[in-house]
Amino acid sequence: MRMRKKKNLEQKLTQCTNLIDMPPVAEDTREAVKKKEYIDLDAYFGNSNPVYLEIGCGKGQFICEEAKRNPEINFVAVEVNRSVICTACLKALDAGVKNILFVHCNAKVLEKYFKPHSVGRIYLNFSCPFPKKAYENKRLTNIVFLNIYKNILAPGAEIYQKTDNMHFFEYSIEQFSLAGFVMKNVSLDLHKSDFEGNIVTEYEKKFSDQGYRIYRLEAYLPNQTICTR
Amino acid sequence: MRMRKKKNLEQKLTQCTNLIDMPPVAEDTREAVKKKEYIDLDAYFGNSNPVYLEIGCGKGQFICEEAKRNPEINFVAVEVNRSVICTACLKALDAGVKNILFVHCNAKVLEKYFKPHSVGRIYLNFSCPFPKKAYENKRLTNIVFLNIYKNILAPGAEIYQKTDNMHFFEYSIEQFSLAGFVMKNVSLDLHKSDFEGNIVTEYEKKFSDQGYRIYRLEAYLPNQTICTR
Repeated sequence: MRMRKKKNLEQKLTQCTNLIDMPPVAEDTREAVKKKEYIDLDAYFGNSNPVYLEIGCGKGQFICEEAKRNPEINFVAVEVNRSVICTACLKALDAGVKNILFVHCNAKVLEKYFKPHSVGRIYLNFSCPFPKKAYENKRLTNIVFLNIYKNILAPGAEIYQKTDNMHFFEYSIEQFSLAGFVMKNVSLDLHKSDFEGNIVTEYEKKFSDQGYRIYRLEAYLPNQTICTR
Repeated sequence: MRMRKKKNLEQKLTQCTNLIDMPPVAEDTREAVKKKEYIDLDAYFGNSNPVYLEIGCGKGQFICEEAKRNPEINFVAVEVNRSVICTACLKALDAGVKNILFVHCNAKVLEKYFKPHSVGRIYLNFSCPFPKKAYENKRLTNIVFLNIYKNILAPGAEIYQKTDNMHFFEYSIEQFSLAGFVMKNVSLDLHKSDFEGNIVTEYEKKFSDQGYRIYRLEAYLPNQTICTR
């Protein structure tokens, strides 16, 4: 059964022209990132609309809905798990959503594929919290990742984060402030706030129904430079 | 009855030598602050121990306990309400705590009385949340106050904030980040965290017992200068 499922998946994927499978970066990441291979997003989408990135798109429910609601935005869904991104990609195909490009790569190498200051917004939805301290550097709001995002974010661009994990949110607040981001629209109980337009994914609904709070924030870089003494 | 209570209070207060009653600053605050009247803390305490400030000490339960636990620190309790600070002052007197000075003034004029970079820590415990947007500028974590604290905080000094009010904590996170503070040890449910040494006041216990979460953070200024572009 597993084999057949996989076979069907691969067969269906041949129809997906909106999936870019990046080769794994086995060598030293910093060296690999230096060799730029920018994706020509304007050419891909056939326009120069703003580009919004979701890092860790999972099965794609959020980005498909967001892309449908905002046809004037070009969405790029980044996901490190190939099987998961394939599912997301097929979901977009089934839904007939044209303004999403799926990029299969690790967030560590974003600067290799995305031009500096080219991204209008980044979404971090229910990223894996990696609760163990030993895996802290894998959290997508670890300062190493935040510094990568800084380089690809356009001036005034924002990061929107949502999570059901309290300790991950505490950590994220600390890391955002450490990286010099300003936070706004912080919500410590999103579903009881007056925030409008929230896209509730199955995952989000499941945890909220179980009584867990949903946490959310928006972060941006202030219009200033930091000069280390 | 009210009269007698008041009379007794004033009578008892004559024993309190650790209360400084600052004259109300009726004129333009900025002008008043320019005329410095620094309190000679070393002379008052008879030593040059580090100075920790609690802004809005209320009835003084926290600061009395903290001062007892840390005799090597000089504590200054600031409170805008005279009747409340008198109660706090008498509490310290009854407890025989010597390392607290009570200063009756508005937090807006702190720079008038405290030397630049002379304060080793600031506590903001259960400050009034002023929930109405119209009173936002009265919240003790409003950026105007944070910029005042910046000027009196010593290099590396920290602000410790604790509150039971979720929206006030959301607001505080935003304002701290806007003012360039870095946050650490953020706790979105203090009583379920592994934080040790917390002093639980009656107020804190009451709200925690009612099922409210207690929120806490520590904020400090990074070792860098901000250069506006």
